[in-house]
Amino acid sequence: MSKTGTCYRADHLLKDFCNEKIQKDLSISAEKAVELKHILAVLDDLSAEELGAKIKEYGITAPDTRNPLSDPYPFNLMFQTSIGPSGLSPGYMRPETAQGIFVNFKDLYYYNGNKLPFAAAQIGQAFRNEISPRQGLLRVREFTLAEIEHFVDPDDKSHPKYSEVADLEFLMFPREQQISGQSAKKTCLGEAVSKGIVNNETLGYFIGRVYLFLTRLGIDKDRLRFRQHLANEMAHYAADCWDAEIESSYGWIECVGIADRSAYDLRAHMDKSGVPLVAHEKFSEPKEVEKLVITPVKKELGLSFKGNQKKVVEALEAMNEKEALDMKSSLETKGEVEFHVCTLGETVTIKKSMVSISKEKKKEHQRTFTPSVIEPSFGIGRIIYCLYEHSFYLRSSKTGDEHLNVFRFPPLVAPIKCTVFPLVQNQLYEDVAKIISKSLTAAGISHKIDITGTSIGKRYARTDELGVPFAITVDSAASVTIRERDSKDQIRVNVEEAATVMKSVTDGNTTWADAWANFPHHSSGSAEE
Amino acid sequence: MSKTGTCYRADHLLKDFCNEKIQKDLSISAEKAVELKHILAVLDDLSAEELGAKIKEYGITAPDTRNPLSDPYPFNLMFQTSIGPSGLSPGYMRPETAQGIFVNFKDLYYYNGNKLPFAAAQIGQAFRNEISPRQGLLRVREFTLAEIEHFVDPDDKSHPKYSEVADLEFLMFPREQQISGQSAKKTCLGEAVSKGIVNNETLGYFIGRVYLFLTRLGIDKDRLRFRQHLANEMAHYAADCWDAEIESSYGWIECVGIADRSAYDLRAHMDKSGVPLVAHEKFSEPKEVEKLVITPVKKELGLSFKGNQKKVVEALEAMNEKEALDMKSSLETKGEVEFHVCTLGETVTIKKSMVSISKEKKKEHQRTFTPSVIEPSFGIGRIIYCLYEHSFYLRSSKTGDEHLNVFRFPPLVAPIKCTVFPLVQNQLYEDVAKIISKSLTAAGISHKIDITGTSIGKRYARTDELGVPFAITVDSAASVTIRERDSKDQIRVNVEEAATVMKSVTDGNTTWADAWANFPHHSSGSAEE
Repeated sequence: MSKTGTCYRADHLLKDFCNEKIQKDLSISAEKAVELKHILAVLDDLSAEELGAKIKEYGITAPDTRNPLSDPYPFNLMFQTSIGPSGLSPGYMRPETAQGIFVNFKDLYYYNGNKLPFAAAQIGQAFRNEISPRQGLLRVREFTLAEIEHFVDPDDKSHPKYSEVADLEFLMFPREQQISGQSAKKTCLGEAVSKGIVNNETLGYFIGRVYLFLTRLGIDKDRLRFRQHLANEMAHYAADCWDAEIESSYGWIECVGIADRSAYDLRAHMDKSGVPLVAHEKFSEPKEVEKLVITPVKKELGLSFKGNQKKVVEALEAMNEKEALDMKSSLETKGEVEFHVCTLGETVTIKKSMVSISKEKKKEHQRTFTPSVIEPSFGIGRIIYCLYEHSFYLRSSKTGDEHLNVFRFPPLVAPIKCTVFPLVQNQLYEDVAKIISKSLTAAGISHKIDITGTSIGKRYARTDELGVPFAITVDSAASVTIRERDSKDQIRVNVEEAATVMKSVTDGNTTWADAWANFPHHSSGSAEE
Repeated sequence: MSKTGTCYRADHLLKDFCNEKIQKDLSISAEKAVELKHILAVLDDLSAEELGAKIKEYGITAPDTRNPLSDPYPFNLMFQTSIGPSGLSPGYMRPETAQGIFVNFKDLYYYNGNKLPFAAAQIGQAFRNEISPRQGLLRVREFTLAEIEHFVDPDDKSHPKYSEVADLEFLMFPREQQISGQSAKKTCLGEAVSKGIVNNETLGYFIGRVYLFLTRLGIDKDRLRFRQHLANEMAHYAADCWDAEIESSYGWIECVGIADRSAYDLRAHMDKSGVPLVAHEKFSEPKEVEKLVITPVKKELGLSFKGNQKKVVEALEAMNEKEALDMKSSLETKGEVEFHVCTLGETVTIKKSMVSISKEKKKEHQRTFTPSVIEPSFGIGRIIYCLYEHSFYLRSSKTGDEHLNVFRFPPLVAPIKCTVFPLVQNQLYEDVAKIISKSLTAAGISHKIDITGTSIGKRYARTDELGVPFAITVDSAASVTIRERDSKDQIRVNVEEAATVMKSVTDGNTTWADAWANFPHHSSGSAEE
């Protein structure tokens, strides 16, 4: 940015440079290729200085202007603002929505009858100060995130509905395949879980459900892959992480992340707030366990340490098992021991009379633990953008000199489920169209009514372009035709049946194939196009 | 804030002082009361200096500490942040969501086939840097707003569905009643419109629809009033404005504003952007109109003004009718005229040969105008808060020594529509409960299944507290009971019918009264409580 003041993300520049070299420059040596691939692999771990050094070494310049670049510096991706009138309380716009669920864990656990597993889901706006927003909806500063936080016992990550998805087959791209330069392969989810490629059943269950969710929306299954994070991509605490990546004209886009984040989030909140965010498992019968018991004798300690007594007590109680057992044996042999109290910044002498240390057998009725969390996290805008690309196609008009735009949105997601129009403009057909419109409203089916005199072919083309899956054309007072968008096939149904048929094919209870099998077919003749 | 640094809103302090004095201080004179009432009426128009002067005059102090107050200063309620990495692009978090619809007017009008009326609706987050957030969900810094922007021809504010709401009767509180110290009265909406109390049919239609919406959610109609804005409360451009106010323990809360904002928003965007945000009405046959035509003679102007020609031409064309006709008569009598060109900052001499000004008869095929907008704007958090208050009640337990919490959410809005539980813990009943749960899921009914061994009375109390309207209890393999929350009445239905009955009473196709009439009744015996 030396010359123009334009800023770039140093890691993105270096990544683009390496990818470009590896893919397009045939003159680079095998060693060079290995070096560049290594940089890509460790990119996220590089410091600002290391990034700067590599940029200088490779002579990378600004993408558009080829101007030289100044040294990189760290940049906070959170938007800062000031809360309240004083100007003294800085605030930040949330860069993710998930934390709200973690801080409410105690209440959520209680609402679920203090039982695991359970899940909480939410959807909301998040904000990141992207340095260079681009690629339409793919990289923006305000976006919609949705997550499910599924809390499980870390010792039991099975899932009761896992068998419902275990037989699914789709493109998976495990770590090993990526490192060895292979590409994503069609894989049976159940096998990937049983071989340990996917860390556990619950993680596998959500990978399967995300696959079903995306393909039901209309994402092309051949342009959807589940890519496992490389070791260096993954947060240190994560047990395993897979991204649902969708291929678009911008390449493979990360749209959903499905991660086993272990107990990290709950532990981090617990450490900062001091509030225990834990779950309990009641034993069917009490278990006998051996426990270390440290009992400071406060009276003795008080006599010796006066005002410092509390800090000494706390330090004694905070000893781990080894420290305590060492002290116990020293006290037994020597009668006293030197003990460093960090909070006092000094070493004190502990006498045998001041503390009792013993191992005791105790009966425990329950086990206390921090739950693990499995988190599918959805980038809503990205999914919608990819859905647009996968749903869009062109078809020739009848005369062939024109291309018509069509969105093949499935009935489930199409914002408008059907259009109603009279074949020609007359009062009778208009009245029938209005009756059908009312019955569609009563059935809760979103629709458009088009009583313009435009040719039927043009009106079909118009609703195809909006991705409306069905069109009801009124061409008599008793019966109407229903046309399916992609096949252009038409059936004939009675006016009274129209809304019921629509309801059934749009809410997924039946398919168009069922309707096609059950109703007389209608030939469009010259009406279409 | 002199002493502690705490900030207050000067207008709120003055308002609270005046209200308190008027309502509670019996010693004030009639003149004083009039003065205080006048201040309340003009409060929104007072400048920072005027507010400060009144606060000094009345000796108003800080509410909690009674500390003296410093002079008020203006405060921007928008959160400011910085966009991008340079730190040089200030940005503000949106304080309302409506503007997105206005800037997209051209596209929306096109999508609607270039026809009026049409409406766009949206829901989203808005942010205001409230000085003192308080009262739960009522005054917060991040909140959810929803609006409908309904665009109409300013010459025709009728609404096709107006007759569907005209007969509604509810509490209305017009301007006149407020000023004359009366209270809200039950009024027929149609009468209020025909008497001109409500400005027009479309505004009336939305008032009616908001009434139906809020009462269907569960807002108590006796604690809901529609209050008209006083002249000084209303924006200068608004034709009329009514607030749906709901009574809560914090008083009457403004939850929905329904305003006829005239053409203000579209005009303001048009002025700043230069993009015409207008609609057209095609005439069935062309109309003859007299139009002023100003034709600068560019050749002559060019000879005299050279490089300044363009600015002179623009200034001539920008004349209004009066200016142009004055110039015309001056040119006819004197042959030339002095003319001030603002953009040049000088006065030039215009000769008769340089411009032709005439009134011509023209045929017009359409009328061009800026649409008016009627805007119902919903504070979602406030509505939900009031719904909680209006839905909550206590009832005595059977023994009378305990009060049970109940939310009487209507089935339509209850987040959980029903609970399913086996009467006692056994495998058969649990299996039946799971079969019913599956059929409820298939029917799209959100529900809870509770297979804990807790007493049935406690489980009923638990779901009552969550506002779950129905409970299905499995007490045999063939049939189950369905209990309605508020009446505690129970009917008996076959296992296979349970989901269908639930679907029908929760989506509003039938009522509990219908179900009560159609199925055998069940006496709870001693099970309940």
